[in-house]
Amino acid sequence: MRKIAAAVALSAAALAARAEEGMWTYNAFPKEKVEAAYGVKITDAWLDHVRLSSARLAQGCSASFVSKDGLVMTNHHCVEGCLEQLSTAEKNYIANGFYAKSAADEVKCPVLEVNQLVEITDVTARVKKATAGLEGQKFSDAQKAAIGKIEEECQTSPALRCNVVSLYHGGIYNLYKYRRYQDVRIVFAPEFGIAFFGGDPDNFNFPRYDLDVSFVRVYEDGKPLKAEHFFRWSKAGPKDGQLVFVSGHPGGTDRQLTVAQLEYQRDVALPERIARLSELRGATVEFQNRGPEQKRISQGLLFGVENSLKAFKGNRQALVDKEFFAGKVAAESAFKKKLAGDPKDGPAALKAFSSIQEAEDLRRNVRYDLAYVMGSSGFMTDYFAFARTLVRGAEERTKPNEVRLEEFQEAQLPAVTQRLFSTAPIYDDFEIFKLTWSLTKLREDLGPDHPFVKKVLGSESPSDVATRLVHGTKLKDLALRKKLWEGGKAAVAASNDPMIAFALLVDPDSRAVRKMYENEIDSVVKKGSEAIAQARFALEGTSNYPDATFTLRLSYGTVKGWKEGKKEIAPFTTLAGAFERNTGRDPFALPRSWLDAKGKLDLATPFDFVATTDIIGGNSGSPVVNADAEVVGLVFDGNIWSLGGDYGFDPKLNRTVAVDSAALTEALEKIYGAKRILDELVPGK
Amino acid sequence: MRKIAAAVALSAAALAARAEEGMWTYNAFPKEKVEAAYGVKITDAWLDHVRLSSARLAQGCSASFVSKDGLVMTNHHCVEGCLEQLSTAEKNYIANGFYAKSAADEVKCPVLEVNQLVEITDVTARVKKATAGLEGQKFSDAQKAAIGKIEEECQTSPALRCNVVSLYHGGIYNLYKYRRYQDVRIVFAPEFGIAFFGGDPDNFNFPRYDLDVSFVRVYEDGKPLKAEHFFRWSKAGPKDGQLVFVSGHPGGTDRQLTVAQLEYQRDVALPERIARLSELRGATVEFQNRGPEQKRISQGLLFGVENSLKAFKGNRQALVDKEFFAGKVAAESAFKKKLAGDPKDGPAALKAFSSIQEAEDLRRNVRYDLAYVMGSSGFMTDYFAFARTLVRGAEERTKPNEVRLEEFQEAQLPAVTQRLFSTAPIYDDFEIFKLTWSLTKLREDLGPDHPFVKKVLGSESPSDVATRLVHGTKLKDLALRKKLWEGGKAAVAASNDPMIAFALLVDPDSRAVRKMYENEIDSVVKKGSEAIAQARFALEGTSNYPDATFTLRLSYGTVKGWKEGKKEIAPFTTLAGAFERNTGRDPFALPRSWLDAKGKLDLATPFDFVATTDIIGGNSGSPVVNADAEVVGLVFDGNIWSLGGDYGFDPKLNRTVAVDSAALTEALEKIYGAKRILDELVPGK
Repeated sequence: MRKIAAAVALSAAALAARAEEGMWTYNAFPKEKVEAAYGVKITDAWLDHVRLSSARLAQGCSASFVSKDGLVMTNHHCVEGCLEQLSTAEKNYIANGFYAKSAADEVKCPVLEVNQLVEITDVTARVKKATAGLEGQKFSDAQKAAIGKIEEECQTSPALRCNVVSLYHGGIYNLYKYRRYQDVRIVFAPEFGIAFFGGDPDNFNFPRYDLDVSFVRVYEDGKPLKAEHFFRWSKAGPKDGQLVFVSGHPGGTDRQLTVAQLEYQRDVALPERIARLSELRGATVEFQNRGPEQKRISQGLLFGVENSLKAFKGNRQALVDKEFFAGKVAAESAFKKKLAGDPKDGPAALKAFSSIQEAEDLRRNVRYDLAYVMGSSGFMTDYFAFARTLVRGAEERTKPNEVRLEEFQEAQLPAVTQRLFSTAPIYDDFEIFKLTWSLTKLREDLGPDHPFVKKVLGSESPSDVATRLVHGTKLKDLALRKKLWEGGKAAVAASNDPMIAFALLVDPDSRAVRKMYENEIDSVVKKGSEAIAQARFALEGTSNYPDATFTLRLSYGTVKGWKEGKKEIAPFTTLAGAFERNTGRDPFALPRSWLDAKGKLDLATPFDFVATTDIIGGNSGSPVVNADAEVVGLVFDGNIWSLGGDYGFDPKLNRTVAVDSAALTEALEKIYGAKRILDELVPGK
Repeated sequence: MRKIAAAVALSAAALAARAEEGMWTYNAFPKEKVEAAYGVKITDAWLDHVRLSSARLAQGCSASFVSKDGLVMTNHHCVEGCLEQLSTAEKNYIANGFYAKSAADEVKCPVLEVNQLVEITDVTARVKKATAGLEGQKFSDAQKAAIGKIEEECQTSPALRCNVVSLYHGGIYNLYKYRRYQDVRIVFAPEFGIAFFGGDPDNFNFPRYDLDVSFVRVYEDGKPLKAEHFFRWSKAGPKDGQLVFVSGHPGGTDRQLTVAQLEYQRDVALPERIARLSELRGATVEFQNRGPEQKRISQGLLFGVENSLKAFKGNRQALVDKEFFAGKVAAESAFKKKLAGDPKDGPAALKAFSSIQEAEDLRRNVRYDLAYVMGSSGFMTDYFAFARTLVRGAEERTKPNEVRLEEFQEAQLPAVTQRLFSTAPIYDDFEIFKLTWSLTKLREDLGPDHPFVKKVLGSESPSDVATRLVHGTKLKDLALRKKLWEGGKAAVAASNDPMIAFALLVDPDSRAVRKMYENEIDSVVKKGSEAIAQARFALEGTSNYPDATFTLRLSYGTVKGWKEGKKEIAPFTTLAGAFERNTGRDPFALPRSWLDAKGKLDLATPFDFVATTDIIGGNSGSPVVNADAEVVGLVFDGNIWSLGGDYGFDPKLNRTVAVDSAALTEALEKIYGAKRILDELVPGK
């Protein structure tokens, strides 16, 4: 089995055992494992090329460079915000899609940022030295200062994004240096009806028939980027049983959490988040019933809510699986036994389990204060986000970099101003809807007698406050936001804008709770996790992969279906299947363009497929590449079992769901006539 | 401490230890315990008088007779459905209240039924004999037949409602014979603004300022009922530390559930119900934003949803309390050890724990089929309820009584026809809203590829189906419903009403799942619970009380505040407090009538109070009476800790919340000028 010939001869069924769990960092990819299992040699040059051809959307997705002229492929749902922002009541790019027939037609997305990971540096020793022997606030201040300093040194230009990332829960600290591109223009998006065919009912399911793709282009100095690294295009797509790689940015996994942390997720965080999002979903669907314009402007919110909802439900499902949870409890207990026999790291790690338990108990008690007083769960409106940024930005920028709130440290400012100066339209009725709803939740969860609620509402109702603030604020005006940002503290203090006044009003309470959170919960968990990670590290080294943290990772696996009970789920669907599933009614209505093109299409073309690669939310938009680093697919989802992937990977059931590059080629050519794009993907064809 | 003098001398603090858990049946009330603890002698005559003065609203509340002329007191929220049904766009009795100045102004509620418990008979031996040695379907058929037969023999007139009730989970079967009154007229209800002052934010909280009261009158042969038994009225209300009783119909508790059953509640049933209701709440609130008429007609739905939501959240909170759940696990494990040493009942009871576990696992797997295929969670519209009743009623009434679906056995028919022939108005837009929403959930939870979903939706969307059915059906016409009911199978078969056709279409699937449920889940749990109960009984007898089952129970306790963390919560609020809490904005807006009457009121009058009596949902509307059987209060809620009462009673925290009879007297006299009612409550005053 360790020889190439033998590996090739393996049947698809036998491959199951080889499907490898893991979201590996590029500097610790298990090349030997892949070679041993698949007979494929992965070189450092290959890894560098794949890394530099991969991209991240700072807003929370993955992507890939696919042409020498800076063309970037990602999912439709990753640029839906941009399409919504560019649309108007007359031009609905969500419903009807978008295609820039010429370079001149490419339009800038108001808040899209593309990042390319250019360098990884280990800074563990420096960070740990800064915090050695410290606890509580001193620990967290020292850590923040050390990280701020490292990032500041790296941040030699606004075109860089430097992040010190914690891996293995503080076992390792790496400095990730990204090239940052903020001029990103939309090139192509299909209609929502096919990008999200099957809608919420089919989301996280398979078989599936979605063309969840979009192309954007990165510009530099007003011109298309000259990309040194990009993926070549496979017109044929992948084959059943083939080795594939997914390079992307899994947002976060919780596979190393302690049982106390998992219990908090299972018993408190997930059920409460699900209830909150369910209510918001009900309200938003019904808001959409007010009319087509309301439907258009709230589509992005609804998609986000339903998508998260399904993900959280899947997470919860995994944690209430008795066998699964018992496994976690048993593993922790076995690990603690090992620790008891480890005089070096054991005592600190064992103590850390208790201190994390205490921090989680405290978190449970103060969770509503964290969400509503510290956070802005009660103030769901773009205007409040602007106002808080202006108020805090003015204050924080007067301080030395390393003592600022971390989101206002120099390395973060380009992203902050990109959001603050977004030209995306804002619809006041929608803002009132969201703010009223969230203020009502604030009152409900904190209780009407909470001093913060009295401060926020006084004798007004949530709807009174929302209407007054949204109608009163002038922050829709971009020039005003720029003026206030540039004017700093004096300008903010002189402003008589009611939303600025509101943000000032709630700021002291928010900062007070944040301080408590950082000292008594966050730093305790961080420090405790570090102690546990250090002990685990001493036992395992980097032979295991770190939990996902929205940093670039490489997964590998095979194209392969699975068994659902007694039913075999085949790994591929075809274009024909989409036409069979079409009912003409949303969300199962194929767009006009597809119905019209049906006769021209090769209906046997593979459409979507599944693979055993280990992914999670944030991997949306990741390229699926073959051993030759050619794009064979585009990740847009996982199956329902992938949702347990937050806490563990089950190779029998967990599957990545991707669009086949063959379907992308067929659709671009025969449905959308997108010759410009095809010529770029397959030059000289 | 066992002497009267000593008991009287006890301070309020010392009383805590005496606060007694328990919702006792009238035929097993622990008179000795009360006498021992409080020095108060409870006689059988007293128990009979209190029982016969108590009443139940068949729709799910408690109540009490408070005058010789059939005046009945209950909560506002218990008659809100009636007020909504009697209201129109012009006359809004919810917002403005209702007061019949003369007897002629009393208006019949379309579907209100008052029950009075006239007799309790033990039928345990007869039921158990019928099922001895049987399993699965045979067990459940035999039990249903035996119970049907007993009820049928008892049911000598439509004026009776005979229910065989299972107590101690099948440890005892009692026949409860109720006098049934279906002519119930509304006499008085205050404005919603004061009946539910504080709204959802204050619900299940205390301090509280609600006048959650209504008066209805029972008529017999078109005349006010001459009531033999009724409670006299205490104008003074209760005192801190006083012994009080609550006589009412707690709907259901789960204190005897096995750990497997509790796990199902904690991990599956409650979180999923909370998510469903949260979504419905969001949708309904936003439906209300369509306009004042939409707000009016959906107020009852929203209240019900929010009330259940808060209750379920409280239930879940109790079950995810680690200490609480560990206590349940430990108690079961200790009980199992006892069983292992009990050769008589032990083996059957131990086996029952496993079979219940298996049944709960099966329930988890098929729960969506139970909700949507067997039940009508996907068909939320009055029209479907009518159609299913007509379709099934026609079929079932051709069968011998004891083999019918239990809801169509003779004893149930008066209630069935009362609902079916309700004159309450139906609003088609609201029906479409509810049906669309619930069909969407059906598709989501079963998945679009489920055969039942395909049968229900075909190639239509949920909104298509809802609109077509609601606009097509003629079942709004009461005469048509009567004709179809009376015409039986032939009439139903000949009908071309689309909702009837729909109910016929889904009936076979529904009945098939129901059969599976009854044989493989329900009967297994029932039989298993019986075996466990029998073993428990052999150990404990009736020294403990049975879980609540919406049968009449008597609780006792004391008027007493509690300690919330370090804060003492006083047992009484005053009318003055309501004026302090008034913001003028819903839900903290006092009605005009209150603002106008403020100068006349004695603001020191006690308003709401708390007591240690053990209650649960269903107790709403229960009288709080003193040892002289005088009404001193009206139960309308429990505090937040009472919600854990489903699974256990914590005397330190769990409190009943009631309106003080002093506040009722003051308000009826000085705010509402309801002299007619006061004269009845306090005759010859």
